[in-house]
Amino acid sequence: MTEVATARRSRITPEREAELYAAVLDLLREVGYDALTMDAVAARTKSSKATLYRQWGGKAELVAKAVRHNKPGGSLGSFDTGSLRGDLHALTMASDDCEMEQNSALMRGLAMAIHGNPDLLKAFKEYLIEPEMAEFRKVLQRAVDRGEVRADNPAIDYVMHMMIGGFAARTMIDEQPPTQAFLLSYIDAVVLPALGV
Amino acid sequence: MTEVATARRSRITPEREAELYAAVLDLLREVGYDALTMDAVAARTKSSKATLYRQWGGKAELVAKAVRHNKPGGSLGSFDTGSLRGDLHALTMASDDCEMEQNSALMRGLAMAIHGNPDLLKAFKEYLIEPEMAEFRKVLQRAVDRGEVRADNPAIDYVMHMMIGGFAARTMIDEQPPTQAFLLSYIDAVVLPALGV
Repeated sequence: MTEVATARRSRITPEREAELYAAVLDLLREVGYDALTMDAVAARTKSSKATLYRQWGGKAELVAKAVRHNKPGGSLGSFDTGSLRGDLHALTMASDDCEMEQNSALMRGLAMAIHGNPDLLKAFKEYLIEPEMAEFRKVLQRAVDRGEVRADNPAIDYVMHMMIGGFAARTMIDEQPPTQAFLLSYIDAVVLPALGV
Repeated sequence: MTEVATARRSRITPEREAELYAAVLDLLREVGYDALTMDAVAARTKSSKATLYRQWGGKAELVAKAVRHNKPGGSLGSFDTGSLRGDLHALTMASDDCEMEQNSALMRGLAMAIHGNPDLLKAFKEYLIEPEMAEFRKVLQRAVDRGEVRADNPAIDYVMHMMIGGFAARTMIDEQPPTQAFLLSYIDAVVLPALGV
């Protein structure tokens, strides 16, 4: 059974997968998470609902994977510039202000949907937050290995909190999406000094 | 006209005002912002809708002022312990974990409602965020005057971002409301080092 599932799974090409994720994100922007149906995804992508369920299990998983796939600039772990500041700045520069604004609107909508949908929260943790934290840990470990950050610096556990604060508060206090200039300044003023860099 | 309004306004005693705000928060917890009506507030508090509108202008203003009034421990500016760490810790200790959990749930609901209600965002900025930022500026100014924080430290502009990050990300990543222990540790690991303390 598992072999059959794997065989079926492998029939979807990476191009087709990317096309599907893009369609899911378009629909999300148009109608929001709660109104998004697997029927609409099937119709928009000309696939069968059976295929969607077989491949992704359900709406929450499909949405979380689409968001993950859409993350610009690939994974943070792939930036290895030789310094923590360089890595964090490279990550920031990987998406331009227009992409950041689009993502910010999308994430705000999903953050709201999460509270009414425990399965979406679960999928988000599994496919987005945890992989993201693993990437941050990798980047921080390299900084520790280089002697930039002390291994016992307590701020290491709060890097995601600091970053999320930058994004969320920017939207709330400044009423505008985070820009590259804002994030670079926030990283230099808050994240690096807290880490002792 | 203004004098009449002021005269009318002064007829509500502080006790009655506190009672009214408490009723508004109870209703908010029960039904959420969108379903909250001035009719329900009037019925619950045995006041006339005309009085509510005359006194508060509208639902958004009433809710923002009720939340502000409910903020535990009074204003941050009133803590003057002689050190920045002392002030921030005193602020944290002013609400116990149970109060913090209740407030966290309430604020999460309101943060969601804000996106669909521009008038709520406006009232929130005016009656909650701006006074809060003014308090933080006062506390930080004292720290600058004592020589604890350099006047040109760029993290001064991001104190609210850091604090909001602690609250919001704690809920999202750790899936639990912020506790005193968490916030004290976050202040020591992130906020104070970023400020160079």
